Amino acid sequence: MTDPFVVVGGDAAGLSAASKCKREDPDRDVVVFEKGQWVSYAHCGMPYYVKGEVAGLNDLLSLTPDDVADRGIDLRRGHEVVAVDPDDQTVTVEADDRRFAQPYGDLLVATGAHAVSDPIEGAALDGAFTMHSMDAAAALRAYLTPPDQVDPTEVDGEFVDRARVERYAAMEPPETAAIVGGGYVGVEMAEAFSAYDLDVHLFQRTDRLLPPFGEAVGEAVADELGEHGVTLHLGAEVERIAGDDRVAAVVADGERVPADVAVVGIGVRPNTALVEGTPVELGESGAIATDEYGETSVDGVYAAGDCAEMTHAVTGEPDWVPLGLTANRAGRAVGATVAGDPSLVGDIAGTAVVKAFDVECGRTGVVDHERARDAGFDPASETITAGSRSGYYPGAAPTTVTLTADRETGRLLGGTIVGTDRAAVRIDTVATALDQDATVAEVERLDLAYAPPFSPVWDPVLVAAKVLNGSLEE
Amino acid sequence: MTDPFVVVGGDAAGLSAASKCKREDPDRDVVVFEKGQWVSYAHCGMPYYVKGEVAGLNDLLSLTPDDVADRGIDLRRGHEVVAVDPDDQTVTVEADDRRFAQPYGDLLVATGAHAVSDPIEGAALDGAFTMHSMDAAAALRAYLTPPDQVDPTEVDGEFVDRARVERYAAMEPPETAAIVGGGYVGVEMAEAFSAYDLDVHLFQRTDRLLPPFGEAVGEAVADELGEHGVTLHLGAEVERIAGDDRVAAVVADGERVPADVAVVGIGVRPNTALVEGTPVELGESGAIATDEYGETSVDGVYAAGDCAEMTHAVTGEPDWVPLGLTANRAGRAVGATVAGDPSLVGDIAGTAVVKAFDVECGRTGVVDHERARDAGFDPASETITAGSRSGYYPGAAPTTVTLTADRETGRLLGGTIVGTDRAAVRIDTVATALDQDATVAEVERLDLAYAPPFSPVWDPVLVAAKVLNGSLEE
Repeated sequence: MTDPFVVVGGDAAGLSAASKCKREDPDRDVVVFEKGQWVSYAHCGMPYYVKGEVAGLNDLLSLTPDDVADRGIDLRRGHEVVAVDPDDQTVTVEADDRRFAQPYGDLLVATGAHAVSDPIEGAALDGAFTMHSMDAAAALRAYLTPPDQVDPTEVDGEFVDRARVERYAAMEPPETAAIVGGGYVGVEMAEAFSAYDLDVHLFQRTDRLLPPFGEAVGEAVADELGEHGVTLHLGAEVERIAGDDRVAAVVADGERVPADVAVVGIGVRPNTALVEGTPVELGESGAIATDEYGETSVDGVYAAGDCAEMTHAVTGEPDWVPLGLTANRAGRAVGATVAGDPSLVGDIAGTAVVKAFDVECGRTGVVDHERARDAGFDPASETITAGSRSGYYPGAAPTTVTLTADRETGRLLGGTIVGTDRAAVRIDTVATALDQDATVAEVERLDLAYAPPFSPVWDPVLVAAKVLNGSLEE
Repeated sequence: MTDPFVVVGGDAAGLSAASKCKREDPDRDVVVFEKGQWVSYAHCGMPYYVKGEVAGLNDLLSLTPDDVADRGIDLRRGHEVVAVDPDDQTVTVEADDRRFAQPYGDLLVATGAHAVSDPIEGAALDGAFTMHSMDAAAALRAYLTPPDQVDPTEVDGEFVDRARVERYAAMEPPETAAIVGGGYVGVEMAEAFSAYDLDVHLFQRTDRLLPPFGEAVGEAVADELGEHGVTLHLGAEVERIAGDDRVAAVVADGERVPADVAVVGIGVRPNTALVEGTPVELGESGAIATDEYGETSVDGVYAAGDCAEMTHAVTGEPDWVPLGLTANRAGRAVGATVAGDPSLVGDIAGTAVVKAFDVECGRTGVVDHERARDAGFDPASETITAGSRSGYYPGAAPTTVTLTADRETGRLLGGTIVGTDRAAVRIDTVATALDQDATVAEVERLDLAYAPPFSPVWDPVLVAAKVLNGSLEE
């Protein structure tokens, strides 16, 4: 009998792999070790839970532990895998003061990523949060809600750190909020804090919000945040979060801005400690290197999700873009491969969308010129603004699209989009085109949908392609 | 000096060609003959003008005659081209009892299409309309509006048939409406009539609305129309529109349904009379055959827009799909080609979107199995329903996607979509993929956008690809 398929990590990649493997090969034993209590929860939904737009913590679960058990998966929560021995094909597991060796036939490392906060002094103070755990989200929402409106015993979520929730629920709600970092988390948390009428300050080290989305999107988001009363501190280096044991202020460039609550969202790093010192190789990004099947440099050891590199659709090089869909997809492919049906994990294009109040933003591929040059391209970009619907149809809104292409080949490299009317989903057109190595001329000739309520005759993506193609021909 | 570039028809294809040619080659004389008075108007917007959602007729104009003149184009309205002599390189023009020969260097036939109504007896009665002219739209809206709320002298539109508007404005508004045909026009007019609280009956010869959109969309639209009080007569053959000189009823399958107003929307046919009897060849569809530059079988004679065939992106065969974007694009390409920059008109995929009250529908490519088989494919389809956003995020709505692929190669052939939340624009993902000859397996691995407010982890298009790919592998 083959040793079990062992999965380390019970979230998107891990449980996708376990589910797919068990479905394809029901006789195979599948064991999932999760060091925490929560499994299969939607990271991306946490800002909306904090905002109050999503009612309960349980709403964020894709699968409950019971669902996982129903699939025939042996899920062990509170079990931390602390070592891998590829020669012996075993992992060492710690749980409740026990420590044991677990043999594996195939192993998937799906340990995810962790929010970076170390560089910020004071990030461990009470009242300072990162948005990377369900317990933190529950505690933050309890803090934001007036004490008479929150009953900690009624906060749902079987595994929630109720003591922490109770502690924050008893505090006076904050009146001022500081956000350190102007990426996804920062922008989404600005919206969440504003829903509680807090005085919100957002600090961003560079001059632009959402740097991977490029200039046009960054400026539109800055405008939108400003219109909603968020005070932006751009180009501001946060020195520390100040306070005795509670957050009292953020100090940036010598200025002290009072804050009752702080969120640090300055990025995530892959959780690779488990494989360090083993023959499992890391890539240049620091995440685990994998091949097109998600297999690492060690036979039978796979990695997927936020801890792993994948191949970029445009550059063809390994890259690390920790996002939800590709984690699920890679996990699922590994599950199929392990079950005997070799399946490609697919490429990543870095496609991402984010909402900032009423503004929808999207990006895909390579949009930064320096990065494009590093990958051997000679990049050119054009930015246009066009209507989201026929100009005469109610609801038409300006939609700004930037497309980037390689001058020599005309190949589409990437794009961004921003607007208030169905802008985000339109980035999928660009993501699809660049996955297929389309040229800008081909994009210009795409037969996209037109009807007055949904699009002008020339969709904004087509307008951008037309203009960029024109400038490439010059 | 080269003879002028002569364009027959002053709408999407014709004026796109004229404008592009003049911009690329400002010294070239460009003459556009338009037999009517209206130029450059948005056919697709007329139902929304009738509904009252678009305020004025002038809102539907992309360009006014003055705009056209400003571009240096010699626009002659009220000039009908009645003959082409390719040997002499002249066209014969009639205007105001004059008749003259106009030499051309290059000729573009952009005569458009006309609404079919002949097979329906009584379609010429007062109170019966087709939705293919601005004057009809203006008269119909005047009819629908109570007499005390419409001042015919205030109906905008410089060229409107004011006498016709006045006649209808003076009539008692209709209380019951009959729509003959369940295609785009029928569905859109059902919504328009309902806005005036009319008792609306829609007659469709086949058992399904919007036949090119397939079964799932047809059923969803039938449900939506029914929920809005529209009475559907499916599988009903309309024998005639009855009435003395005014519409009084529609007779279908022996049943007489009273109606004060009737709209006939049973399709359009290409306007090809001008080239019949000339060496300019028609294709099998009955529209004018063209090559990849929009040139007909006669050198220097081009055809573009609703009167012309183009190449289908999936079948690679000539096809006739009269829609707005491809008319504009083909016209623009012909203008560039004539100006000395040979430009491909591009393929058509038959991408189309339509709104039925709150339901958004999209289709692209080949979805009908019989048609797929005719084109040499072995089609397989799957239909799935998935959420438009993360299930926990407010506003998530069921979205139904059908994808069709070739069993042997796995190539994506076409798709349809229907739903209430940003469904229509998602068809562009499918349109882009099939333009690039993507397989369903490739579509399954696309890195599409995910964020709770905009899409679930697995976008409905990806779910459909996953399911179809699974069934292809069996």
